[in-house]
Amino acid sequence: MGVNVALIGCGNVGQGFLSLVLEKRKELEAQGLKINVVAVCDKLRGSAYDPDGLNISKILELASKSEISSYPGGLTGLDPISTITKTNANVVLEATWTDLKTGEPAYTHIKEALSAKRHVITTNKGPVLLYLKELQRLAETNGVEFRFEGVVLSGTPVFNLVRECLPGSEIVSFRGILNGTTNYILTKMEEGLSFEEALKEAQRLGYAEADPTMDIEGLDAGAKALILANVIMGASLGFNDMECKGITGLKVEDLRAALSNGKRYKLIATGYKENGVVKVRVAPEEVPLSDPLANILGTLNAITFSTDTIGDVTIVGRGAGGREAGYALFSDLISLSRKITSM
Amino acid sequence: MGVNVALIGCGNVGQGFLSLVLEKRKELEAQGLKINVVAVCDKLRGSAYDPDGLNISKILELASKSEISSYPGGLTGLDPISTITKTNANVVLEATWTDLKTGEPAYTHIKEALSAKRHVITTNKGPVLLYLKELQRLAETNGVEFRFEGVVLSGTPVFNLVRECLPGSEIVSFRGILNGTTNYILTKMEEGLSFEEALKEAQRLGYAEADPTMDIEGLDAGAKALILANVIMGASLGFNDMECKGITGLKVEDLRAALSNGKRYKLIATGYKENGVVKVRVAPEEVPLSDPLANILGTLNAITFSTDTIGDVTIVGRGAGGREAGYALFSDLISLSRKITSM
Repeated sequence: MGVNVALIGCGNVGQGFLSLVLEKRKELEAQGLKINVVAVCDKLRGSAYDPDGLNISKILELASKSEISSYPGGLTGLDPISTITKTNANVVLEATWTDLKTGEPAYTHIKEALSAKRHVITTNKGPVLLYLKELQRLAETNGVEFRFEGVVLSGTPVFNLVRECLPGSEIVSFRGILNGTTNYILTKMEEGLSFEEALKEAQRLGYAEADPTMDIEGLDAGAKALILANVIMGASLGFNDMECKGITGLKVEDLRAALSNGKRYKLIATGYKENGVVKVRVAPEEVPLSDPLANILGTLNAITFSTDTIGDVTIVGRGAGGREAGYALFSDLISLSRKITSM
Repeated sequence: MGVNVALIGCGNVGQGFLSLVLEKRKELEAQGLKINVVAVCDKLRGSAYDPDGLNISKILELASKSEISSYPGGLTGLDPISTITKTNANVVLEATWTDLKTGEPAYTHIKEALSAKRHVITTNKGPVLLYLKELQRLAETNGVEFRFEGVVLSGTPVFNLVRECLPGSEIVSFRGILNGTTNYILTKMEEGLSFEEALKEAQRLGYAEADPTMDIEGLDAGAKALILANVIMGASLGFNDMECKGITGLKVEDLRAALSNGKRYKLIATGYKENGVVKVRVAPEEVPLSDPLANILGTLNAITFSTDTIGDVTIVGRGAGGREAGYALFSDLISLSRKITSM
């Protein structure tokens, strides 16, 4: 069996996905799974459609030059909505930029896709944070799936881990390092750099944006923690429902004082229950060095899930990167394909 | 839909499983999954069979007194083979004691079950180490599943993590702390206890056996590493194919010297490729404190998988305990049930 994929957004993440399909395609076909990328649409890089499947090497070459619309032999120039609703794709991958205030344009793309009975996989935090329940209902009504492994910890398994590997377990609480930029800055500050120097280094290496507010004020980690709380603890929380404190108040001396007490400052995002109500908090915490989270250094991410079945389970992995986020789309796609082709 | 389960072996692990079914049954039924435990058979504690489902509270009460055969209302006194082949169970859980030399009696139980077209789930390392390929073929021939999440890291997901959450990824190598007893001893030695004192403490707490050879000589970790290499790296290795060194040669001074160099001694089990050939090695290693494995203390276990897709992924959790191993059976059972009831 096979799936026909339309990719909306062909930046780092989309290109990471396409590269993985190119690498792994033969192996998957040997297992009986054929992935046809039939359409690619990117606002800046152009669009192309071939119902029989695009040549992925060619698309990658054209994407790097923002010339996808010069793809030979297919239909070019389709807009995102037509790519979603008027092609023969049965799975839509949404990998456009993230807007945490409006969720657009991903929110519209996903609604259109689900309404047109396309399965949707996204790495986009905006719509998952702002419209989770609505989009889940829309998927259910239309008999399709809505997956978003990549919105927390990128390609490192989180939602699939809970759903597939911890069945029947209640997630009582979670604690995590969900933002690599701030973790990198704290690691560098422990090595002696000031906050400003560490931030500049992070910007130089491409870990931090020119405007680093979302990262250093804890809002990126907060968005991910809210999504986790909503998805795995059944909450319905938004930005205004959490306590959030970033790392801008921390000084090198604070970090050194903690270390001399056998602790390490980490920006910890927590989901927990207080009198049965789910709460989310992001704040710098002094974590004992005996805690698996204390040793997560540099840009690594990690989450500890406290379960009612096997106690604490911690997963550690990279939380960003084009290939890693591309793998989030890819792993959701394989998992979804195994499910829909066995129906 | 429902599944009918026969449980062979009703010690700590089997009782852990039954307790979880009792706790989670209503919730699972609300999701449309009915688990009927129809038969329980334990060499010491007795056996009972009711094709309509046993009363689990009653079985747990009788198991604690080794009086399962006085179960009221059902058929009692069946031997393991009859329990496997002559009841209406479609899933057999094998949770008898482990024998790493012969794999018995679990090997015979599993063969009989697969041949009789029963799905099999086990926590028993012996048959998986010694007869993996044969049992996998037998399962395939008979159109049933053979699962064994619990043989490595107990209920903490390992095989399900790789299969369900890292699809299409090649596991290039792995490194892990696979034995809680030795990790506990090393942690206590860092705190100043001698090897002998730490071992006694581990025995007092029930972490180590009266004969601790399998643990301290690295053979338990080695068995698990061989199983990992065979299952996730496609090898066919046995005890004679690995390098194995335990922790008996380590002294408190060695551990302190490592720490003063920013490293920590850990008993590390590794699977890797050398010229395309899979190798397994178990040995104490000085692990830099920046490595997630360095901070795994006490009886915790952990594995780092190196993938060709998202780099390193580390999972940390408890590696032993009746409830934890019972959850390994339980999670495999739910995952299997979701699969067979959707066919």
